[in-house]
Amino acid sequence: MEFTTGIRKKETVEISELLTGDYMGRNVKVNGAVHVIRDMGEVTFVILRKREGLLQCVLEEQAKGFLIRKDLTEEAAVEAEGIVKAEERAPGGVEIRVSNIRFLSRPDGPLPLPVSKWKLNTSLEAKLNYRSVSLRNVRERAKFKIQEGIVRGFRDFLYGQGFTEIRTPKIGAKGAEGGSNLFRLDYFHRPAVLAQSPQFYKQMMAGVFDRVFETAPVFRAEKHNTKRHLNEYTSLDLEMAYIDGFEDLMDLETGFLQDMLALLKREYEKELKLLDAALPDAGRIPKVRFEEAKRLVSEKYRRAMKNPYDLEPEEELLIGQYFKEEYDADFVFVTHYPSGKRPFYAMDDPEDTSVTLSFDLLLRGMEITTGGQRIHDYRMLMEKIEKRGMETEGMEQYLNTFRCGMPPHGGLGIGLERLTMKLLGEENLRETTLFPRDLGRLEP
Amino acid sequence: MEFTTGIRKKETVEISELLTGDYMGRNVKVNGAVHVIRDMGEVTFVILRKREGLLQCVLEEQAKGFLIRKDLTEEAAVEAEGIVKAEERAPGGVEIRVSNIRFLSRPDGPLPLPVSKWKLNTSLEAKLNYRSVSLRNVRERAKFKIQEGIVRGFRDFLYGQGFTEIRTPKIGAKGAEGGSNLFRLDYFHRPAVLAQSPQFYKQMMAGVFDRVFETAPVFRAEKHNTKRHLNEYTSLDLEMAYIDGFEDLMDLETGFLQDMLALLKREYEKELKLLDAALPDAGRIPKVRFEEAKRLVSEKYRRAMKNPYDLEPEEELLIGQYFKEEYDADFVFVTHYPSGKRPFYAMDDPEDTSVTLSFDLLLRGMEITTGGQRIHDYRMLMEKIEKRGMETEGMEQYLNTFRCGMPPHGGLGIGLERLTMKLLGEENLRETTLFPRDLGRLEP
Repeated sequence: MEFTTGIRKKETVEISELLTGDYMGRNVKVNGAVHVIRDMGEVTFVILRKREGLLQCVLEEQAKGFLIRKDLTEEAAVEAEGIVKAEERAPGGVEIRVSNIRFLSRPDGPLPLPVSKWKLNTSLEAKLNYRSVSLRNVRERAKFKIQEGIVRGFRDFLYGQGFTEIRTPKIGAKGAEGGSNLFRLDYFHRPAVLAQSPQFYKQMMAGVFDRVFETAPVFRAEKHNTKRHLNEYTSLDLEMAYIDGFEDLMDLETGFLQDMLALLKREYEKELKLLDAALPDAGRIPKVRFEEAKRLVSEKYRRAMKNPYDLEPEEELLIGQYFKEEYDADFVFVTHYPSGKRPFYAMDDPEDTSVTLSFDLLLRGMEITTGGQRIHDYRMLMEKIEKRGMETEGMEQYLNTFRCGMPPHGGLGIGLERLTMKLLGEENLRETTLFPRDLGRLEP
Repeated sequence: MEFTTGIRKKETVEISELLTGDYMGRNVKVNGAVHVIRDMGEVTFVILRKREGLLQCVLEEQAKGFLIRKDLTEEAAVEAEGIVKAEERAPGGVEIRVSNIRFLSRPDGPLPLPVSKWKLNTSLEAKLNYRSVSLRNVRERAKFKIQEGIVRGFRDFLYGQGFTEIRTPKIGAKGAEGGSNLFRLDYFHRPAVLAQSPQFYKQMMAGVFDRVFETAPVFRAEKHNTKRHLNEYTSLDLEMAYIDGFEDLMDLETGFLQDMLALLKREYEKELKLLDAALPDAGRIPKVRFEEAKRLVSEKYRRAMKNPYDLEPEEELLIGQYFKEEYDADFVFVTHYPSGKRPFYAMDDPEDTSVTLSFDLLLRGMEITTGGQRIHDYRMLMEKIEKRGMETEGMEQYLNTFRCGMPPHGGLGIGLERLTMKLLGEENLRETTLFPRDLGRLEP
């Protein structure tokens, strides 16, 4: 009988191993996709694309004769053998002087996009149509490595804070926050909807685990086609019990941002450099009341307030500008949103019930988080539902949870793709979404 | 202007802090949900349920008078103040001699289930109907803490192996593996489906990042109502390029299992003990060919083979039994499944094209993983599609990826809830699914 016993070391060497220096002057095997070929006459450079970056392979004159063949083209996957040499002009400072090349696979046609260029100067539409090809550009793919770092930072920070990761269903009988903007489907001849938020579930689980989080897709059938909205996105959600107030949630999010930015600087330095990304500072984040924020920008930028109950995108931008100018702040918490604009489960401020104990977090002038304290008292919740004239059908188990007792709690949700976009200075959410879904796009 | 600067230390103390011993003999504040109240005459025990476990609070005679009120009931959330004492009969070996209790919230009715019992002896149906309450039972909730550990182990192991975490869309124009078993929805007046697997996307991304993984929900509109199937579940998916053969994938999975089981023993010891769970051993895992496995159990257990192309659930059980008896193995890799039973993208064995370079992993007699090497050559892929008489509509970008060159690669998918079930010795997948979705269940 044969057995597996775990991972076996491969004969081929990775870039990070080459950079340790132990391989200098030695004969090694490496593999990768041919990213670009540069014929310089006496030598030919074959740059391999690997998961850790680019690796320069040099074919010198004597090797060129038998190694350069017409099927050595971009996007062929190869295994190359040769001596490791220091070469400061090469990516990472090392190169391979190749003595042999073995083909692992060959493409069957030309590339639709010039992925080996430094900047992929093509339309967003073309990049999205050929997503699996355009992401072979090392700068394009770096964005999603950064996105991984953000989620990783979120999870690692919350594990450290005693949170439990949960997985809540995406198909349900009714929406968490009302009937609009829901995708509907047929579930074995019963009407069902896709979850627009894990709101009800994470609250119910806050009564079980005290602190929970989820990083999962959410679905919104919103018809607006903008640079900042998509119909499927990733929500970084958390809910925390035994809070003393909604300030605890802002403190927690600040802690997450600090930790996550430190993780990016520590472990995603290569990608940050590729993208020339200037990370924001989350050392201290100003808190300003909704009304006050509106007043400040209206005065400073001489702009009439149109809607007193909500922030328009342009106002968010001005608030971002204001706090950058006045406090050199990239982030700003806007607090105490009007009660009418928040969902029924939001806790009203006992000192002024026209506003809620809630907040949005803006980064560089755009909302990336919505959060706040929730109502935990069953009777208070039922009163608010009644006052709003809401139906409770489909909410039985949510409401029953409160009847059975719930600790004081609150939570927040972060749009992952939006946070990535604003961190990296991108202008369109589609740039930081692997396979975007919008009014017009359902493929690839 | 006020600022947030990060997490602030709370006045209340957590169980893990109490266990460090620094608090012994000191006056502290703790909070939690009243899990159970035991009136012993001279003293009353109030056991608090916190995220880290149970904490015994003692109300002695002199305190009882003013602290025991009729609203001190199970599931009230309270803050208790008192002196920390060593008490070996208490959970964790410490208790609080309470001098004051403050109410944070109160329930509004009786519990539908006796959650404070050690074993929640109620029907599965009732547990699922009242999920947010039944999980307040500490053994019930421990299962999902273990489940967290499995996913965490998966991710941590793969990060360490240079994998990139990706997020692929759940709404799409067409299914990855054919038209059956798909949930259909209306996407702005266009027909759309829910992803039954991230298969196409993870393969496409293996050409970008070399190694990718995703931990996300998948949706299958299968009509069978069994203990081992659900219509929405979590798939732990990975895809790895530059493999030398499909054996690399089995080695990788073995490495993951070893790492993950070690993580559970290290960081989830408390929950394993609560559940009295005996973890399997993944030190060495036997590999047996599909045909050979069928023959071995047919001979040993004198059972006629019915279907030569697939394993029946009963056969899986017998294979599990066989390898337990013969090799003391909990896991077994069954390899070389018949080509006709595997998807078109599976790589056939060049030595015998009637079988594929693929495997299933069984744990304690049940399939928990399907994996294998994929076809990476564009022409070979097109030939197989043609041979099967398949349509390629909706697969354009998937196929174009291969035309543009793809390295040798393969991958696997693990059913999270099933792995959790088999690890914990549960008999029904619903026991290890937070909010199950099946033919009859769409709520809560």
